[in-house]
Amino acid sequence: MIYRRMGRTGLQLSALSFGSWVSFHKQIGDATANELMSIAYEQGINFFDNAEGYALGESEKMMGRVLKTKDWDRSSYVLSSKVFFGWRKENKPNQTGLSRKHIVEACHEALDRLQTDYLDLYFCHRPDPAVPIEEVVWTMHNLITQGKVLYWGTSMWSGAEIMEAHRVAQQYRLIGPVVEQPQYNLFERMKMEQDYLPVFQNVGMGTTIWSPLAAGFLTGKYLQGMPEGSRLGLEGFEWLRDRWLQEEKIAKLKKLNELAVELGVSIGNLAIAWTLANPNTTTAILGATRKEQLVDNLKALDVLPLLTPQVLARIDEIMGNKPFLNLA
Amino acid sequence: MIYRRMGRTGLQLSALSFGSWVSFHKQIGDATANELMSIAYEQGINFFDNAEGYALGESEKMMGRVLKTKDWDRSSYVLSSKVFFGWRKENKPNQTGLSRKHIVEACHEALDRLQTDYLDLYFCHRPDPAVPIEEVVWTMHNLITQGKVLYWGTSMWSGAEIMEAHRVAQQYRLIGPVVEQPQYNLFERMKMEQDYLPVFQNVGMGTTIWSPLAAGFLTGKYLQGMPEGSRLGLEGFEWLRDRWLQEEKIAKLKKLNELAVELGVSIGNLAIAWTLANPNTTTAILGATRKEQLVDNLKALDVLPLLTPQVLARIDEIMGNKPFLNLA
Amino acid sequence: MIYRRMGRTGLQLSALSFGSWVSFHKQIGDATANELMSIAYEQGINFFDNAEGYALGESEKMMGRVLKTKDWDRSSYVLSSKVFFGWRKENKPNQTGLSRKHIVEACHEALDRLQTDYLDLYFCHRPDPAVPIEEVVWTMHNLITQGKVLYWGTSMWSGAEIMEAHRVAQQYRLIGPVVEQPQYNLFERMKMEQDYLPVFQNVGMGTTIWSPLAAGFLTGKYLQGMPEGSRLGLEGFEWLRDRWLQEEKIAKLKKLNELAVELGVSIGNLAIAWTLANPNTTTAILGATRKEQLVDNLKALDVLPLLTPQVLARIDEIMGNKPFLNLA
Amino acid sequence: MIYRRMGRTGLQLSALSFGSWVSFHKQIGDATANELMSIAYEQGINFFDNAEGYALGESEKMMGRVLKTKDWDRSSYVLSSKVFFGWRKENKPNQTGLSRKHIVEACHEALDRLQTDYLDLYFCHRPDPAVPIEEVVWTMHNLITQGKVLYWGTSMWSGAEIMEAHRVAQQYRLIGPVVEQPQYNLFERMKMEQDYLPVFQNVGMGTTIWSPLAAGFLTGKYLQGMPEGSRLGLEGFEWLRDRWLQEEKIAKLKKLNELAVELGVSIGNLAIAWTLANPNTTTAILGATRKEQLVDNLKALDVLPLLTPQVLARIDEIMGNKPFLNLA
Repeated sequence: MIYRRMGRTGLQLSALSFGSWVSFHKQIGDATANELMSIAYEQGINFFDNAEGYALGESEKMMGRVLKTKDWDRSSYVLSSKVFFGWRKENKPNQTGLSRKHIVEACHEALDRLQTDYLDLYFCHRPDPAVPIEEVVWTMHNLITQGKVLYWGTSMWSGAEIMEAHRVAQQYRLIGPVVEQPQYNLFERMKMEQDYLPVFQNVGMGTTIWSPLAAGFLTGKYLQGMPEGSRLGLEGFEWLRDRWLQEEKIAKLKKLNELAVELGVSIGNLAIAWTLANPNTTTAILGATRKEQLVDNLKALDVLPLLTPQVLARIDEIMGNKPFLNLA
Repeated sequence: MIYRRMGRTGLQLSALSFGSWVSFHKQIGDATANELMSIAYEQGINFFDNAEGYALGESEKMMGRVLKTKDWDRSSYVLSSKVFFGWRKENKPNQTGLSRKHIVEACHEALDRLQTDYLDLYFCHRPDPAVPIEEVVWTMHNLITQGKVLYWGTSMWSGAEIMEAHRVAQQYRLIGPVVEQPQYNLFERMKMEQDYLPVFQNVGMGTTIWSPLAAGFLTGKYLQGMPEGSRLGLEGFEWLRDRWLQEEKIAKLKKLNELAVELGVSIGNLAIAWTLANPNTTTAILGATRKEQLVDNLKALDVLPLLTPQVLARIDEIMGNKPFLNLA
Repeated sequence: MIYRRMGRTGLQLSALSFGSWVSFHKQIGDATANELMSIAYEQGINFFDNAEGYALGESEKMMGRVLKTKDWDRSSYVLSSKVFFGWRKENKPNQTGLSRKHIVEACHEALDRLQTDYLDLYFCHRPDPAVPIEEVVWTMHNLITQGKVLYWGTSMWSGAEIMEAHRVAQQYRLIGPVVEQPQYNLFERMKMEQDYLPVFQNVGMGTTIWSPLAAGFLTGKYLQGMPEGSRLGLEGFEWLRDRWLQEEKIAKLKKLNELAVELGVSIGNLAIAWTLANPNTTTAILGATRKEQLVDNLKALDVLPLLTPQVLARIDEIMGNKPFLNLA
Repeated sequence: MIYRRMGRTGLQLSALSFGSWVSFHKQIGDATANELMSIAYEQGINFFDNAEGYALGESEKMMGRVLKTKDWDRSSYVLSSKVFFGWRKENKPNQTGLSRKHIVEACHEALDRLQTDYLDLYFCHRPDPAVPIEEVVWTMHNLITQGKVLYWGTSMWSGAEIMEAHRVAQQYRLIGPVVEQPQYNLFERMKMEQDYLPVFQNVGMGTTIWSPLAAGFLTGKYLQGMPEGSRLGLEGFEWLRDRWLQEEKIAKLKKLNELAVELGVSIGNLAIAWTLANPNTTTAILGATRKEQLVDNLKALDVLPLLTPQVLARIDEIMGNKPFLNLA
């Protein structure tokens, strides 16, 4: 396993990490979760990602139960949660969003569900335009002061929103966000490769990217249509299906596959490795639901050395979506 | 129910809320308090207001006992207390006012009486010229840092005093006050409509207004003299009686009543709705002592849409007390 | 002559000073202005007050011409101007108010009219709700940095607005306002005796008060009705007339007059001296239009020692308008 | 004419303004420039936009010559320049970009060419990734301190870059940028309607938008192909031509034209008014080269009241490019 410093912090994350997003509780039970987390841990993965909103809190409870069965040092892994969406079926005012009241209460609830004393990472799962960023920064800072959180970050915020958080942190001399969890894969490049550049350059930031495989689309299993039981067939995820199953994208996929074959690797591992080739990526979160899948994904680390400037240029040509940097 | 952000914070308060001021312990017992709070909660009220000085601490104890019987999520409602007047019959030095010693001790005592781990809102019940505002701001900030308070505010402070608190917060990089609890009703307009304007404009502030009905005077029950058992007849509230029972005010009251009749609403609901028509009002605190009264007060929300600019202008004409803004 | 430090600054102003407001250009010409300023200067008055808006710039031009004829050291007197109202008959956007553009341009224009290199005091003549106080503070600070202004202040701002200016100055480490020019006399006490108290207490501030004689009303000449040619008879000042000529005020005036007679002084000098008895008053601006008037006004300094606590209490009783300080 | 405050500043700009971009020197001479600026000024336009890069400095020289012939108060209009591209045919190192050396030298050169003592607005014409934003903010701040510039801004910066400028201003207590000059029209909406939103909300910013007519494309003259002599036919502007002359855009243009006909207005004025309907637009810069054109453009103000929510929704439907705000 490779470990990388998370942005300008001293925290080291494994370059590949393990997330529970659409899998825990919805697709897999405690036994499988336990098996997958064990493999991940043994292979050197040290970051387990979670959120209050995943399966309405059930995902955190499951991860908490699994961790309870282990004799792993608490210091040997990094645990996250995220606040924004709430976990109740019907949320009242102040039970979602980024008000101080919700962040504080959600943190306490997440600690309970995960059965731990502190979160290593705590993310604002979305920006909340109805709450001043000042209130968010102060609240996260206070949770760090109280020892309940070690580092805080953002997820799916714009570059301007992240910079505003840093401006406020500067103004009040507070601890600002140090990590962002964006979507990043061969089809979604704008945020990581353009919008965040002034952030990376001026204040620094780690990234724990999600969906490196574009919800499985980049595994190649959709080259010939959609199989039964795959994530894209789950109820509530139709929007993912519509977005990807377009002819143009299938065409690009086929060319990528040819390149993968040429390199002697799977298209999925090529796609994962490609996200790691971006020096601003700290870790790519894997969402495997089966043992074989996870073991296979881990081989992406072996593909990384194959991504020479020449290969990366060919990928850019195939995708045709490299952001144009207007450097005048 | 309508919910409003409390000033620039992310906290949402119901536009009508429920206070225990002169009612709890003095006028009603646990059973009625329980009934009223249940109705309020079911109708969407999420803010319950209290203070150490209300009935010398008995009001908080009663509210704490009532809440103990409920299975309401702590995150589903907002609880306040206020510090300044003390709660003992004979207060020694440091048992009233805004010294760090009294604020900290009063907070712990209020948490005990309310049987909760934290106050959502904590107010300085009056300004205290004998204590540097710096000491007040630091103390409130520390209580927030400790997690015992989520937001702090002022009550009956002048605009200049509130701005001084913000200046000190700025100087030391602390969390300043975000809410003020002023008296506001058709007869008391200066603070909300003139003195606080630069505060609203420059640093923002929510308001949880008290006495929207002018201690019941605006309910119309005094149109023909003072009934037995009304709040204005209680011992210790003679000053309220003297203030309102003046001929000129009765005359205005009658004209307001005519307007209410014309609109097909009660004068009380017109008065409550009028306080909500001010965009700087977050919530109006109701002090109902009977079920029917509370249910009736809640209809004020239906009156709000009737308050067109034309109707508001007529009210201004009747009252003749709209502050003159010297905008040169 | 008595000299007082202007608030917490090191600048000393004569306790009585000389203003050009409604007199210069409108009531008197260069010769009289010259005579009055000479007497004032010889009697130790060192502060001459002016504004861009006085007689649409003509007042400043006249004062500039008079000063040009003198061999007075520039260091021996203090010169002010004020910005807000503009001086053109028809002002276009940005030719009034407190935008950076207008403040800077108005300063240059005032320096031209007064024929001087710098203003000792530069006042914002009114608050401007359409301009962030931040922009005002920055602009005034920069004019001080450039040496065009020595001290800056406000006029007719509320306590909250002044504190906001100090908060902003604190935030950006700028030079804040150090003097306010309020109306202050026996009939207008709220601002000086209540609203500004937290300002005096927390950040300090000098005051150059205007209208110590309530536009001449307190000279006693209206005891028997309004004489021809007095200031209250001038066109455009009807509002002053309406405000003062009310029976209740005349009644108080008569009682004040009795007290003055008892003390063996004129009611006018009693009124002026009374403003100086407030320790927060730095200087009272005189607006005399005749030599005898000015010479007489200067005797107010001799009345000051007569204002014992007992006499001040009697005045408070007569006026019945001493602000009630709710110190809980 | 309508005037709007430029963001949170106190400066007022006319809602329509006049720019010299591709017209001065390239398309029109002094006489026409004089005629156009006179009409603009008489119609209430008070903002004249310029840049060092427009016609390699010749545009500023021409505007300076025209203004020299006028007796307009300097305080009655707002003058801008922009720094980045340089003005020499062959620029050496330090003769372009945003280094302190170039910004300072370019400012002095622009003042010379425009024959004025200060610029009301000074823009960074593009972001310069090769210069720390810290150096840019410090330099602009110093120019303001020196009185050579009144307000500074950015042009075509990203939201994250603008926020970084504010973070730096916060850190060093400097005056940050207060205005941005983006391209904004019916075809280019992302920056104004999505990227800048956190900037508008958190620190505020005026906008002086350019190309409200999409380089003339939205005037309707391209409905049947490209006429001789139009701006899109000028050498060096081929990129504009390629961008707009696409079938899909022509189709949208025709539908817009139908809507304009229905409203009884020209498509051009509909397009201009539409940019003003965005509350975050301060002013739309017109680039008319003929008298009739300018007079006609000014009628856009009359179209503004026709843009009801219903009409705006129809426009959104026609264009199909309204940014999707992921507010979760």
